[in-house]
Amino acid sequence: MRKIEHIGIAVNNLEQSNELFRKLIGKKHFKTEIVEGEAVETSFFQVGETKVELLQATNENSAIAKYLTKKPEGVHHIAFDVEDIYKEVARLKGEGFEILNETPKEGADNKLVVFLHPKSTNGVLIELCQEKS
Amino acid sequence: MRKIEHIGIAVNNLEQSNELFRKLIGKKHFKTEIVEGEAVETSFFQVGETKVELLQATNENSAIAKYLTKKPEGVHHIAFDVEDIYKEVARLKGEGFEILNETPKEGADNKLVVFLHPKSTNGVLIELCQEKS
Repeated sequence: MRKIEHIGIAVNNLEQSNELFRKLIGKKHFKTEIVEGEAVETSFFQVGETKVELLQATNENSAIAKYLTKKPEGVHHIAFDVEDIYKEVARLKGEGFEILNETPKEGADNKLVVFLHPKSTNGVLIELCQEKS
Repeated sequence: MRKIEHIGIAVNNLEQSNELFRKLIGKKHFKTEIVEGEAVETSFFQVGETKVELLQATNENSAIAKYLTKKPEGVHHIAFDVEDIYKEVARLKGEGFEILNETPKEGADNKLVVFLHPKSTNGVLIELCQEKS
């Protein structure tokens, strides 16, 4: 776990939230990206070494759409940057954490990602991510 | 907003959560601290330039105790490090954010802190913090 790579925030309206976070952080998002596999449109703001990632669902089957039917907008996940995602998954599995996808999948921002079930992590959905080479 | 200073996570049992986050992050918390004014006991883990702060209520009047009667354990707030907290409060007030305490108060870890109401920030409780000189 080298740093907090990003904080993912589920929002209903990306355009409105981009404007809200521009005012909050004091600068504009530096990119937007659609992640087809997750059915989300994302935007990224840089704050020091960490990014704030806003996530809006692109269809009703998106995990973000399902999340927002049960909960209000807010922090959806915390992502840790790791050097070797396969090694970290093995280590965390050994420690008893529940891994949601043992095979890393394609995430936003050129990353391989793995999620841990929040029931094994004090209610916090944890993402591990490794920059693809 | 210079960096994400810390991510605050509300927990029921600090001792158990210290052990859980030690396994998750791969190292032990580096300190614990009781903040009398907030009625919380906290512990801190360093991950890159950011800290993970676990918060347990020390009595039932604590904001954390009240939070945990309504919501499950999880991310409670996101704290941004600022250079001049008075200037940031004035700027954010001007942008229309609702400030919970306009006069900075004593937080954990030798900081002056101000909170923004989550209803003005997409459901995310935002803390501004400035290191006390």
